[in-house]
Amino acid sequence: MDINKELAYKASDVDGMIYKYLPAEKGYQKTVLQAMNYSILAGGKRIRPILMTETFKLFGGASEILAPFVAAIEMIHTYSLVHDDLPAMDDDELRRGKPTTHAKFGEAMGILAGDGLLNYAFETALSALDIEPGNPRVAKALQVLANKSGVYGMIGGQVVDVESEKQYGISKNRLDFIYELKTGALIEASMMIGAILGGASSEEVDKIEQVAKKIGLAFQIQDDVLDVIGDKETLGKNVGSDEKNQKPTYVIFEGLEKSKQEVKTLTEEAITILQGLPYENPFLTELLRWMVLRDK
Amino acid sequence: MDINKELAYKASDVDGMIYKYLPAEKGYQKTVLQAMNYSILAGGKRIRPILMTETFKLFGGASEILAPFVAAIEMIHTYSLVHDDLPAMDDDELRRGKPTTHAKFGEAMGILAGDGLLNYAFETALSALDIEPGNPRVAKALQVLANKSGVYGMIGGQVVDVESEKQYGISKNRLDFIYELKTGALIEASMMIGAILGGASSEEVDKIEQVAKKIGLAFQIQDDVLDVIGDKETLGKNVGSDEKNQKPTYVIFEGLEKSKQEVKTLTEEAITILQGLPYENPFLTELLRWMVLRDK
Repeated sequence: MDINKELAYKASDVDGMIYKYLPAEKGYQKTVLQAMNYSILAGGKRIRPILMTETFKLFGGASEILAPFVAAIEMIHTYSLVHDDLPAMDDDELRRGKPTTHAKFGEAMGILAGDGLLNYAFETALSALDIEPGNPRVAKALQVLANKSGVYGMIGGQVVDVESEKQYGISKNRLDFIYELKTGALIEASMMIGAILGGASSEEVDKIEQVAKKIGLAFQIQDDVLDVIGDKETLGKNVGSDEKNQKPTYVIFEGLEKSKQEVKTLTEEAITILQGLPYENPFLTELLRWMVLRDK
Repeated sequence: MDINKELAYKASDVDGMIYKYLPAEKGYQKTVLQAMNYSILAGGKRIRPILMTETFKLFGGASEILAPFVAAIEMIHTYSLVHDDLPAMDDDELRRGKPTTHAKFGEAMGILAGDGLLNYAFETALSALDIEPGNPRVAKALQVLANKSGVYGMIGGQVVDVESEKQYGISKNRLDFIYELKTGALIEASMMIGAILGGASSEEVDKIEQVAKKIGLAFQIQDDVLDVIGDKETLGKNVGSDEKNQKPTYVIFEGLEKSKQEVKTLTEEAITILQGLPYENPFLTELLRWMVLRDK
């Protein structure tokens, strides 16, 4: 199967769900609604929504209940990028070749559009309570979404990452914490919510969390590996930028070969857990491999 | 009754509920947890939590279900102040005589602590789904919280306020929009959630929303009035600062006397609706009067 083609197809599929939930750009507060939609429409591979829908399918899920969560997870991912790009954070003016939200709409609107997206993600996800009132799986999915996005999830990782900049001296435990939370937490949320709403037992949800944790960590280590060996053109950023920015990385702790090996080991462990489940979704397996063994 | 004494007593009561939900300051992400708690503990009169608990009591509410919402509304109010104070927004270094969150913890941490509080508010409120699983009133309360805090509520008002700065030329409709959303929306959320969880019918919730809308607007107009006539020392800020900042105000549109009259009219209309309900909470009536007829 041509994974890139398949992914593009699935991305347009989830875009259909996401677009349905975007706010109409009208009213006195139009600017923030435009800024929110601009941030979402700026693109991205929609990895998290696709992980969610594919895990949902793995467990035989087929209802309408997933759609608000698909939109919500992408809103949360997007708000985190909008705030990350702010001058007080990474100070990035470009993302995927387009002006970042604050570069286009001003810094105040960048802050407010991020706040707006985070809040709107919960508004959107909470609409699932109307689709299946009283369904305890919806309650659980909402709680996982909130927990994995917050200070014990993504925001927590982001905080420690910000504090560790230009600090070669941080411990490997601390680096693991950043990696597991900053990127890992939303990958976990995506797959766990797919599993919960797809009908998984709580043991199965735990296994999916393990799969996602390993893949999230492998994904981040691969990032470090690519920063050292990647082709500048393919990667779209300067190779060796981590070293130049004095950013602590896995490669610095473990060396290049051991880091590469770790990516492979984590991926195989994740896929072994996934394939131990009495269900099958070959595309999901392919997707996990692709996420970590990519060359850009 | 001595309303200030009574209010201080009630504030310490709701503080008990709020503190129970504050995160423990430990783990690698400790800094953001400290910044969040610092922002909440910096004080404030806890008007929104008290409005919530008093409206809950009005409808005979007496269960544990309210506490997570009491904490959540104060977290949302607090995050909005933390982000408002940022350099790209109002650029305030002091609030209630203490350094603002970003002044104390740095700008990046100010952004992240605000994000953390907003997200944690939903984590906290969503814990109510475990207290009374399947209760449709909890679902409704969660949706009201999200809606009134977001781009169709508080954030929407904040956006238009930011865009209207230094613009004497805005329309009165636009000013009404700002006033109704920026401050009004969270007052509505507080009272509506109290009503919903207290057992109000949907007609009664609508009436409470009207009461809160009128009080919220009166509260804002009174702010404009006090900016012109208030005693500098009582008010704690420079009188006439709105005019100096070229801030559009109600007094500019309607004049001082008509504005004062409007505050009284809105307050009496609100109290008439409230007293038309077949329930009584004299303290709530006093509180509403105090909110708008204050001299600081």
